[in-house]
Amino acid sequence: MPEKNIDLHGSAPDKHKFALLLIDVINDFDFPEADQLLKYARPMARNLLRLKRRAQKAGVPVVYVNDNFGRWKSDFRRTVEHCSQHGRGREVVELLRPEENDYFVLKPKHSGFFSTTLETLLRYLETQGLILTGIAGNFCVLFTANDAYMRDFNLFVPSDCTVSNTRRKNDSALALMRKFLKADTRPSARISLGVTQKKSQQPRKCRR
Amino acid sequence: MPEKNIDLHGSAPDKHKFALLLIDVINDFDFPEADQLLKYARPMARNLLRLKRRAQKAGVPVVYVNDNFGRWKSDFRRTVEHCSQHGRGREVVELLRPEENDYFVLKPKHSGFFSTTLETLLRYLETQGLILTGIAGNFCVLFTANDAYMRDFNLFVPSDCTVSNTRRKNDSALALMRKFLKADTRPSARISLGVTQKKSQQPRKCRR
Amino acid sequence: MPEKNIDLHGSAPDKHKFALLLIDVINDFDFPEADQLLKYARPMARNLLRLKRRAQKAGVPVVYVNDNFGRWKSDFRRTVEHCSQHGRGREVVELLRPEENDYFVLKPKHSGFFSTTLETLLRYLETQGLILTGIAGNFCVLFTANDAYMRDFNLFVPSDCTVSNTRRKNDSALALMRKFLKADTRPSARISLGVTQKKSQQPRKCRR
Amino acid sequence: MPEKNIDLHGSAPDKHKFALLLIDVINDFDFPEADQLLKYARPMARNLLRLKRRAQKAGVPVVYVNDNFGRWKSDFRRTVEHCSQHGRGREVVELLRPEENDYFVLKPKHSGFFSTTLETLLRYLETQGLILTGIAGNFCVLFTANDAYMRDFNLFVPSDCTVSNTRRKNDSALALMRKFLKADTRPSARISLGVTQKKSQQPRKCRR
Repeated sequence: MPEKNIDLHGSAPDKHKFALLLIDVINDFDFPEADQLLKYARPMARNLLRLKRRAQKAGVPVVYVNDNFGRWKSDFRRTVEHCSQHGRGREVVELLRPEENDYFVLKPKHSGFFSTTLETLLRYLETQGLILTGIAGNFCVLFTANDAYMRDFNLFVPSDCTVSNTRRKNDSALALMRKFLKADTRPSARISLGVTQKKSQQPRKCRR
Repeated sequence: MPEKNIDLHGSAPDKHKFALLLIDVINDFDFPEADQLLKYARPMARNLLRLKRRAQKAGVPVVYVNDNFGRWKSDFRRTVEHCSQHGRGREVVELLRPEENDYFVLKPKHSGFFSTTLETLLRYLETQGLILTGIAGNFCVLFTANDAYMRDFNLFVPSDCTVSNTRRKNDSALALMRKFLKADTRPSARISLGVTQKKSQQPRKCRR
Repeated sequence: MPEKNIDLHGSAPDKHKFALLLIDVINDFDFPEADQLLKYARPMARNLLRLKRRAQKAGVPVVYVNDNFGRWKSDFRRTVEHCSQHGRGREVVELLRPEENDYFVLKPKHSGFFSTTLETLLRYLETQGLILTGIAGNFCVLFTANDAYMRDFNLFVPSDCTVSNTRRKNDSALALMRKFLKADTRPSARISLGVTQKKSQQPRKCRR
Repeated sequence: MPEKNIDLHGSAPDKHKFALLLIDVINDFDFPEADQLLKYARPMARNLLRLKRRAQKAGVPVVYVNDNFGRWKSDFRRTVEHCSQHGRGREVVELLRPEENDYFVLKPKHSGFFSTTLETLLRYLETQGLILTGIAGNFCVLFTANDAYMRDFNLFVPSDCTVSNTRRKNDSALALMRKFLKADTRPSARISLGVTQKKSQQPRKCRR
């Protein structure tokens, strides 16, 4: 139905030069190295929540890009309920539970861009810079970063908002993204969303 | 998380040479020509339900490919509730309400293949022939058919399972798909899902 | 090699709000209805050449989007030679022979966007409006127009610069694109490339 | 023109379970670390040529996947001429010069799959296993491998047929592909193309 599609995201577009992606944070942590990873995931979740709150204040769209755990028949909210009640990482999921105004994109594979609507959504949001966070830094975050780089987004991968099975693996993934993808990996607290905040004090074109 | 992705659709894959797509049948019918279209949509919905029941018996995967009405923040089940309770087409939506075992794919634009996971899903289902149904025959069904044809699927567009604003427009879209996309447009009752039925009389699910 | 890719199209980018696409005009016309089509294709080629000259003057990038005739092993210039010497449409091919500054994109299927580099190229050219021309109006031009519309390009399909097997089929394709894709189908002579022309009177190339 | 597209690659399809990709070997080596890389590239080129000869004998399609160096206006053969005559790596280019029966795919970015026809070509060739070779192992080869893995190809990245700026970087890229992409990185001489050879002794369906 064409008219509906003129504005992809309904009556409340959230145009902003940044978007914050939370990758695979809604997770049942039902895989071999989960305990190892969870040790890092809990403090990471607190950093990420702080960053999310700052993004919300600055009008930066928040997008959950999540594995659907192979269930194209269920929906994402059901997955959230399941993971927040029964998963080994329920504290993490509880902290980062999606809220009313968050976007979500289900991905069938490792990269958030592969066979999903992410690229179209980001184009409508007029995103130029992507802040990539989540699990695992050396896998789905890295795959998504590769694809984002090929699509000419500026990349931020705050070092305190991704985790991998080991600290060393995470550091090495961050180094790789810094070097090859020109990613900025400064800690989240040092990312300035301010320029945009200023802009949004003027009568913004596209508010929620 | 890689291991999860080995089998894209979880513990109960539904491999079959056919897949049945229901396009934009979950619809609030909130557009100018809706009344006109609904006149045809109600009898169509009954035909389509019969076809869906036959598909389920034959083990043919049923995939809802639906506009998300611009709301990447809500989920599909919520859209279903909304449309089945408040929309002008609630009878249609009620008849065709998705069930536990149905797949669904949200599309941001006209074609079900554009910026969605549909192609990946169909590849995992090992689909060769697509049965396209739904609303509107001369628009989203046609766009999806074009894209399916380029991807070398065999096309069936049963003439009694799509509707457009006018009968004439629907017929002309069907003629177009017959001619250019080599689509088979025989009425749904005459589509044989039989060969596959035999296969699925063995203890169904996931074989091959 | 990354640095090379910062600017996709070398040292002489041609940013412009328009791009002119010539679809399948390099053609051996080796198919059943070719004679019928060639009757219309010859006068069309003269109109299209005039439009191309105007585009060149206005700094509008000219992009050949062409079937490779199943030969991923040969190159486009060889195809041009073949078609301009031996094909039944050699007059057409001769008139519209690609020149040094023209871009070209080989397509494996009907739509110029399917499995090609066209979308990336147009993004680098900063194209907003596409002028679609070529052969056949009711097939490859139509398929390309559908895909362009889904990607939010403004469409121009000048009625005197596309042909189909019959005049009636071409008219009906034009009507379809006007209605569903909001295409502007005015004759080529009435398309104003003027605003841009002003810009390009400054020492052309790469600005904005 | 539809009929042409039934068989994407003309009258001489080369169906095989493997395909050999040569990534960015046609290269002007006009970048800062070229000298360093060329030290490794020359012996690599000899290994790769041997592998190519074996592939040709076994009926494995050979596909050049190459940066077009930002020139969408020139063609690949011209690039080959340029690089084989003037580039600092002309020995490499001369050894690996594409031949009449080789396929080629021009890529605008790092991954051979991004915005190219590669995926469609491989589907028509019925490729299941990809042998990735070329330059640079830790960049374009790695990006292409990531994308191939998401598309469920089995990967072979023979350790003696890729090079990076330093040996250490190449080893680390190979380790990464082994671990995350389940790539087989045994040296080229130990890759068996034999099974397929047997198959092709039967009256093959699709020969050249």
